[in-house]
Amino acid sequence: MYPESLKRLIETFKYLPGIGEKTAERFAFSIFDLDDDQVELFKDSLQDVKSKIHKCKRCNVLTENDLCSICTDSFRNNKILCVVEDVKSVFLFEKLGMFNGKYHVLDGLISPLDGINPEDIGINKLVDRIKDENYEEIIFAFKPSIEGETTSLYIKRVLDGLNIRFTRLASGLPIGADMEYVDSLTLERAINDRKEVS
Amino acid sequence: MYPESLKRLIETFKYLPGIGEKTAERFAFSIFDLDDDQVELFKDSLQDVKSKIHKCKRCNVLTENDLCSICTDSFRNNKILCVVEDVKSVFLFEKLGMFNGKYHVLDGLISPLDGINPEDIGINKLVDRIKDENYEEIIFAFKPSIEGETTSLYIKRVLDGLNIRFTRLASGLPIGADMEYVDSLTLERAINDRKEVS
Repeated sequence: MYPESLKRLIETFKYLPGIGEKTAERFAFSIFDLDDDQVELFKDSLQDVKSKIHKCKRCNVLTENDLCSICTDSFRNNKILCVVEDVKSVFLFEKLGMFNGKYHVLDGLISPLDGINPEDIGINKLVDRIKDENYEEIIFAFKPSIEGETTSLYIKRVLDGLNIRFTRLASGLPIGADMEYVDSLTLERAINDRKEVS
Repeated sequence: MYPESLKRLIETFKYLPGIGEKTAERFAFSIFDLDDDQVELFKDSLQDVKSKIHKCKRCNVLTENDLCSICTDSFRNNKILCVVEDVKSVFLFEKLGMFNGKYHVLDGLISPLDGINPEDIGINKLVDRIKDENYEEIIFAFKPSIEGETTSLYIKRVLDGLNIRFTRLASGLPIGADMEYVDSLTLERAINDRKEVS
């Protein structure tokens, strides 16, 4: 029914996360409204992202160079390292603009039940890096979960003996949350981690 | 913050209808999960749709050839012509598979308030075509609206004197509709267009 090339474009839009037939069709039709330069830019961007971007040799953040712009930024605090479970987390923190240290991106979290062991998520590279560089604090910025805690504990144990402070993000009630909708694990954590009113 | 090429890809995903920053980011990151062949296909499809597809010389349906597959299909009924307001409507009808006549795609509907006049939507081409070919019935398959009615009436008047039956799609209550949620215009139309129970 659709011309061949339109059909193919609809199929490729379905590669995108959460995109089904209807939206893919809408996207494909919208391409007719773009001018040639925009389509050219679209094509080139797809190509460039795939061919130019790779992981930073040191911290695994996405970059077009050997080392990413965070690793090479001499104005950042190199005494504090934020360890995250994926590269998106780095961009989240950077958007927030509150953290000025360095990052290290793991390839997920340890999850023995899913067969994901320490060696699968690149922990050796992290451990070597921490031993090489002189950090005073390692922040584990994982999502609050069994896997996050397992991963934090594992890394802390491997580095046992080094004079480093290990911290994790606070967990508790999200700001603005309605008490009655907060799940029991979060509430439990909020009670255990309660803080002095000062 | 993002590498240059990633930033550019995020921007281009925002060309798509309804796509904002967050979803564009999610789409862009998903490209890393595609293999090279898929990215290649994506690029080529964008290019092809833009360069190969154009309007059918006769009916304005999208095609890669001079005439579309519907115009050249000799098994279709060439006594009945369905006039639609955009090319998407054709694909909707074709998916349904219930209509076996020919189509003609206008470039929108007459809307004097928006400064859209008959000559802006390609009515001359339609009128010439109807005069050239021997239709027994013209179906106006526009969305139920003032603009749809204006356009139908205008075309009917221009073709006054030809021995052709002009029809429009029925409008009324959608199947499965809850009476209390039906708007008053639809209800009015449903009453006026009521049919004999047989």
